[in-house]
Amino acid sequence: MTIVDKPSLEVCLSPALLHLYDTHGAVVVIIDIFRATSTITAALHNGAKCVIPVASVAECIAIGESIPNSITAGERDGKIAEGLQHGNSPLEYPGHFINGKTLVLTTTNGTRLLHMVQGASDIIIGSFLNLNALCNYLLARNEKVILGCASWKDRFNLEDTLFAGAVVNELQHAFEINDDSARAARHLYQSSGGIDFIDFLKDSSHYRRLSAFGLQKEMEYCVTPNQHPVIPVLKGREIVAI
Amino acid sequence: MTIVDKPSLEVCLSPALLHLYDTHGAVVVIIDIFRATSTITAALHNGAKCVIPVASVAECIAIGESIPNSITAGERDGKIAEGLQHGNSPLEYPGHFINGKTLVLTTTNGTRLLHMVQGASDIIIGSFLNLNALCNYLLARNEKVILGCASWKDRFNLEDTLFAGAVVNELQHAFEINDDSARAARHLYQSSGGIDFIDFLKDSSHYRRLSAFGLQKEMEYCVTPNQHPVIPVLKGREIVAI
Repeated sequence: MTIVDKPSLEVCLSPALLHLYDTHGAVVVIIDIFRATSTITAALHNGAKCVIPVASVAECIAIGESIPNSITAGERDGKIAEGLQHGNSPLEYPGHFINGKTLVLTTTNGTRLLHMVQGASDIIIGSFLNLNALCNYLLARNEKVILGCASWKDRFNLEDTLFAGAVVNELQHAFEINDDSARAARHLYQSSGGIDFIDFLKDSSHYRRLSAFGLQKEMEYCVTPNQHPVIPVLKGREIVAI
Repeated sequence: MTIVDKPSLEVCLSPALLHLYDTHGAVVVIIDIFRATSTITAALHNGAKCVIPVASVAECIAIGESIPNSITAGERDGKIAEGLQHGNSPLEYPGHFINGKTLVLTTTNGTRLLHMVQGASDIIIGSFLNLNALCNYLLARNEKVILGCASWKDRFNLEDTLFAGAVVNELQHAFEINDDSARAARHLYQSSGGIDFIDFLKDSSHYRRLSAFGLQKEMEYCVTPNQHPVIPVLKGREIVAI
């Protein structure tokens, strides 16, 4: 009889804790539920050629100018950033608009974490919008996984951790969980009841902040599972659908 | 009518996140359930004159030699560190032994966090052993509170966060909670059912690690609430009972 070790599954709760995790050879999942990774998932599933995540508005404009058929997008304080064309909402990118185009997207937390990860075997994008597809993909890969929460300016947030917990809950039987962050994320997911995520998140810092910008509908969409079954993966500077 | 703002209550999940919190003027509670803050609470309640927390074994020995009627204590990998007299367990310090003595204690995570905090109005010690006394004290102070989890080598841990959640759960009506870490800690506490903490923690990293050293009885004691109703506070280099 051959005993095959299960691969490990860990959760990094903030980019400020990333140095504690060995990302080398791991499949790293970037999670920024409100809203970068939700928007990336939606845009790619709706036919975007690719998404190029960038840190600054200036870089976004410069790259946008160099790529034909591209759209520049990003927000600062809940509004389209000056000099850009569109915002950071999954609802802004339906197929009839985004199909075949390159989305150059500037976000703060999600992009930063994505660029911090070193040596991963793959960097992929997770959101409620691709929850089941992601879990099935990770099961099939059967490799070490680190779920990286983008958080908010390095501060732990509830929505990214809730999503990480949903993944842990789904994968726990196929992976070795020896990480208290993963256990806590799973408890958090179980506390939510696993159904009405937006109600669970209404008391969160991010929900309060984005509600002040009138983004309730966008947030509700971001926590509606499995609207966009696609696996976005980073290839060079581009995020593409596998 | 005068509206008085409630003071804020936040939870810092790891020393690596402490820079995100404004500790100036706050009452900062150091939490290291397994086992530094449990041992400090027990020793002071049992009559220790004071506890001097130090980072290294060498410093522990040097300070111990300079203070009459003192005991040097600390562990490395679950055993009494070479050159020290006692270990890091609350059960080692009953009144007939520790009364009137100075305990010079070297621990890694708890001591490090305690020395990192800057500008706090007070640094106090929390553990399940003084849970209700601590909550009553914080209610009476009615000032901004930051609960600081010592964690394990900067990695989030379940037992410190569980305790932070117990405090948040008790104080939430008297404090302003606008911090997702505090909300998550409260959810974790509620997941535990609030009764059988050791059973809840049996799957945690720290429980597994310390169980390998045969420390189950010590851990069970550390999560038994209200055995030692005392408020330890840092004064200069000494922790004393208020």
